[in-house]
Amino acid sequence: MAQKTYSHQFPSGLTLVAEEMDWLESAAFALLVPAGCAYEPAEKLGLGNLTCEMSQRGAGQRDSRQFLSDLENLGAETSASVSIAHTSFGGAMPAESLPKVLALYGDLIQRPHLPEDQLEDARLAVLQDVRAIEDDLAQKLMLTLRRRHYAEPWGRGPQGTEATLGSLTMADVRRHWQGLYSPRGAILSVAGKINWSELRDRVTAIFGGWQAGQPAAMSETSPPRKYHHETVESNQTHIGVALNAVPYSHPDYFQIRGAVGVLADGMSSRLFTEVREKRGLVYTVFAICHSLKDRGGILAYAGTTSERAQETLDVLTAELRKLYAGITADEINRLKGRIKRALIIQQESSPSRAGSIALDWYYLSRVRPLAELSQIIDGLTAESINAYLAANVPREMTVCTVGSEPLAWKG
Amino acid sequence: MAQKTYSHQFPSGLTLVAEEMDWLESAAFALLVPAGCAYEPAEKLGLGNLTCEMSQRGAGQRDSRQFLSDLENLGAETSASVSIAHTSFGGAMPAESLPKVLALYGDLIQRPHLPEDQLEDARLAVLQDVRAIEDDLAQKLMLTLRRRHYAEPWGRGPQGTEATLGSLTMADVRRHWQGLYSPRGAILSVAGKINWSELRDRVTAIFGGWQAGQPAAMSETSPPRKYHHETVESNQTHIGVALNAVPYSHPDYFQIRGAVGVLADGMSSRLFTEVREKRGLVYTVFAICHSLKDRGGILAYAGTTSERAQETLDVLTAELRKLYAGITADEINRLKGRIKRALIIQQESSPSRAGSIALDWYYLSRVRPLAELSQIIDGLTAESINAYLAANVPREMTVCTVGSEPLAWKG
Repeated sequence: MAQKTYSHQFPSGLTLVAEEMDWLESAAFALLVPAGCAYEPAEKLGLGNLTCEMSQRGAGQRDSRQFLSDLENLGAETSASVSIAHTSFGGAMPAESLPKVLALYGDLIQRPHLPEDQLEDARLAVLQDVRAIEDDLAQKLMLTLRRRHYAEPWGRGPQGTEATLGSLTMADVRRHWQGLYSPRGAILSVAGKINWSELRDRVTAIFGGWQAGQPAAMSETSPPRKYHHETVESNQTHIGVALNAVPYSHPDYFQIRGAVGVLADGMSSRLFTEVREKRGLVYTVFAICHSLKDRGGILAYAGTTSERAQETLDVLTAELRKLYAGITADEINRLKGRIKRALIIQQESSPSRAGSIALDWYYLSRVRPLAELSQIIDGLTAESINAYLAANVPREMTVCTVGSEPLAWKG
Repeated sequence: MAQKTYSHQFPSGLTLVAEEMDWLESAAFALLVPAGCAYEPAEKLGLGNLTCEMSQRGAGQRDSRQFLSDLENLGAETSASVSIAHTSFGGAMPAESLPKVLALYGDLIQRPHLPEDQLEDARLAVLQDVRAIEDDLAQKLMLTLRRRHYAEPWGRGPQGTEATLGSLTMADVRRHWQGLYSPRGAILSVAGKINWSELRDRVTAIFGGWQAGQPAAMSETSPPRKYHHETVESNQTHIGVALNAVPYSHPDYFQIRGAVGVLADGMSSRLFTEVREKRGLVYTVFAICHSLKDRGGILAYAGTTSERAQETLDVLTAELRKLYAGITADEINRLKGRIKRALIIQQESSPSRAGSIALDWYYLSRVRPLAELSQIIDGLTAESINAYLAANVPREMTVCTVGSEPLAWKG
């Protein structure tokens, strides 16, 4: 099926990108506002999360309750989250509701009430995210790993801490909104049953007056990496390992993505077979490609008993090193079906298409056609992947552990 | 868009039902085997779950590992579960993989290895479900409520207990599979990019030789209902209330579904407004229509602090009674957008269509066209709903609580 994609750049810096899926009755949008946690002041971590929470509590003509109940009655299922680079809003709905739902989000972005009497309630809500992570040592470890591998500000999580969240004021929230809920670099994507020219006119009417804010200053630090251990009383040890890799925007991205698939995707993967099945070392083991705009990494995790933690770390890092010695044609061919399924399923739903074309625009400044993506996957061979691997052997690994005792790691 | 649905009844008792969605590249299936937990011997609860777990550990020419890795490499995302009436298997995949995936499930159903050396491993897996419920008092309460409202065997959950699961043997598993993994009353549904006559031929080849088992004897008991309290040390009290209502197959089902929507769906609903917003009584409150083949109910839940538990029970049951005094046109009109969104989104994905047409066949012995469903929703009015409510005022409520102290309940 031929894809129909469109884009329009507004003078304010907002990009509208859309894909017509005229066999659907639904429509979905994603709105990426360049207000990610990387742009928070270092002593105010969690401010993006708190502002995002506050922004949804009434806007324009509607108080908090009216706003949420109008969204519900339009049949919209919505979401909001903060990542490193963006505060993102999204929704899926019957196509006929789209113009009204976009108008509500036009209010949310440009005319939020940010009601002071709901600040404590909103603070409690975001504090729950912090506490949830305290209870989840695996997630906590992976946050530490990213912090040590990417450093400030790219290794941050959006949650903040009890201390930073506790200190945030209404003035902080207003300043964050004013400065960072800005059209410069913002991306609004829409997928589903739409008419492009009507959509463009509608978005012009809703977001045409969106004013640019003040971009935040940001200072990068160099990453500590190496080995880091945190002692907790537990019979389990959580192990995280990070390596450098090219980001999504790099022409070679799918070479490393294919290699990591061989390492970690599914029951035929090396990690499943070597670490879990043959040695029964772990409860959970995985490795993924992680991508920021201009840098990327491989993040690997294993959870195991304290007794078997050293052996697990040794085997996991040995498998990571061995990957760079190359993969076989069999291994990559098995993987292609899995990757294609994900593509096919994604192609069929308006929310996942809206999410994908927004991220494509962010990473690539264009929408990558699915046919092109399919061709890239088909074109992966053991030769192409091994050429990439041989030329990109990482010089170091970042290792973090959480458990009763530190492990031996020579780096 | 016109729906293209087909069905075919095999001499064995298996029904194949399918919907062609030719704008998709995916296909999905659901296989409902009449091996629900209602058919387990009372002293062997959890046997269905254990047999379901064992059935996925190798079949036909493939051992456990080969079976699962072949499914993965075909790009199939699969699931399996046990409900009151069925053991259900399902999967979504690229359309071209469907014939091979169905052949794998043909083996699973007719030629499972049920490998004795994996019995303990499978037992541990199903024991985890039991322990997860022990840790989740709200879910535990709702199981108790269903047990007291519907009685044996219709009020059962599929999990069993540590004691019953501990006693199960390979002979039990083999007997359960032999007797209940039977085509009589089984339903195989497929939705997505399919060709009907090819599909029918393929299913004939795969499932044509499926032999009927021995239907299980079953004895019903009469439900205890009334009020039941379970004391646990906790600052929270969990409250469950059940009433009789018509099942999904009844012509009036959508009248009560509309009324329960007014009571409980979304932020404009009565329970959200009266119980949660105006009085701040609860953390969570909900009410749903629950349906078995020939009986149904309204199940309501509220979770609150022990101090406010009595007031919460009083308000919740008062709202349930008040519902039967009638709803307004405003209330039902607000709701229609929400219900339609669910219909639209459901229509667009092959796994949810496969699930729906299988359940339609089970409840109605036909596939209800989406246009008919849409017409029913459009046709709901305050008058039609109030006529149903006035004629069906329930004579009793079943009430269960879990918390530090029993509450006052006059019934």
